[in-house]
Amino acid sequence: MNMIQPETGSGTPAARLLFVLLAILFAVVTTACSNDPLPSWNDTKSKNDIINFVEKVTSKDNIGYVAPTERIAVFDNDGTLWSEQPLYFQAIYTFDRVMAMAPQHPEWKDQEPFASVLKGDINGALSGGEIALLELAMATHAGMTIEEFADQVRDWITTARHPETGRLYKEMVYLPMLELLDYLRANQFKTFIASGGGIEFMRVFAEEVYGVPPEQVIGSSIKTKFEMRDDGPVILRLPELNFIDDKEGKPVAINQYIGRRPVAAFGNSDGDLQMLQWTAAAEGARFCLIVHHTDAEREWAYDRLSHVGKLNKALDEAQNRGWTIVDIKKDWKHVYPLN
Amino acid sequence: MNMIQPETGSGTPAARLLFVLLAILFAVVTTACSNDPLPSWNDTKSKNDIINFVEKVTSKDNIGYVAPTERIAVFDNDGTLWSEQPLYFQAIYTFDRVMAMAPQHPEWKDQEPFASVLKGDINGALSGGEIALLELAMATHAGMTIEEFADQVRDWITTARHPETGRLYKEMVYLPMLELLDYLRANQFKTFIASGGGIEFMRVFAEEVYGVPPEQVIGSSIKTKFEMRDDGPVILRLPELNFIDDKEGKPVAINQYIGRRPVAAFGNSDGDLQMLQWTAAAEGARFCLIVHHTDAEREWAYDRLSHVGKLNKALDEAQNRGWTIVDIKKDWKHVYPLN
Repeated sequence: MNMIQPETGSGTPAARLLFVLLAILFAVVTTACSNDPLPSWNDTKSKNDIINFVEKVTSKDNIGYVAPTERIAVFDNDGTLWSEQPLYFQAIYTFDRVMAMAPQHPEWKDQEPFASVLKGDINGALSGGEIALLELAMATHAGMTIEEFADQVRDWITTARHPETGRLYKEMVYLPMLELLDYLRANQFKTFIASGGGIEFMRVFAEEVYGVPPEQVIGSSIKTKFEMRDDGPVILRLPELNFIDDKEGKPVAINQYIGRRPVAAFGNSDGDLQMLQWTAAAEGARFCLIVHHTDAEREWAYDRLSHVGKLNKALDEAQNRGWTIVDIKKDWKHVYPLN
Repeated sequence: MNMIQPETGSGTPAARLLFVLLAILFAVVTTACSNDPLPSWNDTKSKNDIINFVEKVTSKDNIGYVAPTERIAVFDNDGTLWSEQPLYFQAIYTFDRVMAMAPQHPEWKDQEPFASVLKGDINGALSGGEIALLELAMATHAGMTIEEFADQVRDWITTARHPETGRLYKEMVYLPMLELLDYLRANQFKTFIASGGGIEFMRVFAEEVYGVPPEQVIGSSIKTKFEMRDDGPVILRLPELNFIDDKEGKPVAINQYIGRRPVAAFGNSDGDLQMLQWTAAAEGARFCLIVHHTDAEREWAYDRLSHVGKLNKALDEAQNRGWTIVDIKKDWKHVYPLN
């Protein structure tokens, strides 16, 4: 094979060195220019807001500089990192588990809300309100060790598919938000999830899907109990609520788990309002972003009147306070990862 | 000034280069040999146990290898990272706060357990048992914002001195354990505190003193509440217990906050037993260590009968299971940092 020869004019050692240095410089400059950290975002205000904020808090000579240890970013999950229609995916998991467990529970076919679920009548099951939902959740999320529960969720998340898109649920995460998580981490942010979803449910896939390790996942929880058995200790999941990580609960849980006030918060619904307010009200540079679901064609379009992910008060407050509002239809080149 | 000249024999460029390379090699080798990661530990079994474990889990070709993301180490605080005699330091903080707050509470001089504290009769105050302690804790730890509480703890930890040693409490941390924390982190362990002490109390100084950031501090907690005030949102500390991070509570809290099972656990009392059992019972290489207080001269000597940091069942279990038992008198060259 022929080796590529330098140009005739760069024959002397000094000229060769100059050639090499110029080549390196050229490579660096072209890489920097083509290295868009958010390639799935259109060049609109939302993307500019994000990049301006990150550059401000990471530039040591900027008045808004934030030390790396303080760079805490919190993300809601349902509707912010992955879809939540026609129902929160964990609710679908719950119904799927009722179906799977039914053979061991013959009594369920005459007992609401289980009977409705088994007939495929989700609206009937939901008509029992919060108490019915709680009953379904406890029957499917408690009464096993933490490892048994994680195994059940892992089975589901790697096989169950969304009824409308046919995708695995873990493939219905937002590509632009995955890029945003990576971009923040590349700038020494510690990224946390702070979601109304179940903490042990999300921990099963958050590291693989979002790059967020279990110890950076905050969510709703049921009580658990340590028990010493003949073959060793276990932690058991109990049918009793521990904490609802929603609305006023979000800043409370963020303080409890993290103990620092975030510098950036990302949400999509009224359930995220207090987390955003808590983040925005601190001194120094802060960033609040709302994902507004505006794309009925590629995802769903919903806000003030939606039965899941209702965005009403938080949309008003975002507009009044100048928080960044992502318009999915306009701001995102792609919604889901390209398979 | 004369510059140091290279030896005459290293006059040619090639020889000079060789000289520089040899000098670098020499520096690397001597640094490696003198670079004892645990210089305050005597060369006894305890130190060997620690180093053997760390080398096992960090060597990729070892059957005990543990991936960096799974390298979770949990440390008790009182009696494991800092002293706890004659009383848990947070109890002393509580009494100091009662004294400081007394002018605003004239009713306390006739009201137990406050009256005993104000008379300096700690045994009298403690004679009311857990209920009295809880009452003192709530009066001093609740009823303010999280920032106000942190400021009060910060004032105390930077000024209050231990009655016997005259040291600041934060100077009564164990130098060998600080080295151990650093050594584990240098080997890509994530170090957590899992203590019966108050989570927001410890977070005030854990980063400065132990290098453990707030989001890696787990402890007991009271309930808190988000409140929107005219001048912005606050989180208020409420006079109601949330969680006691002791005994069976430790593995429960570790699972709740971290969501991974630790590979190494460090404690000193029966309050740490379940955390150690939970850690030890997992598959793969695991490390459990108990600090045994045996040095009445340099610190305190106590175990099975102590009113704080009682070490009875956990000492038996450590002996039966072959966990590492640190004998402070024999194993530690120094106890506290050298000022």
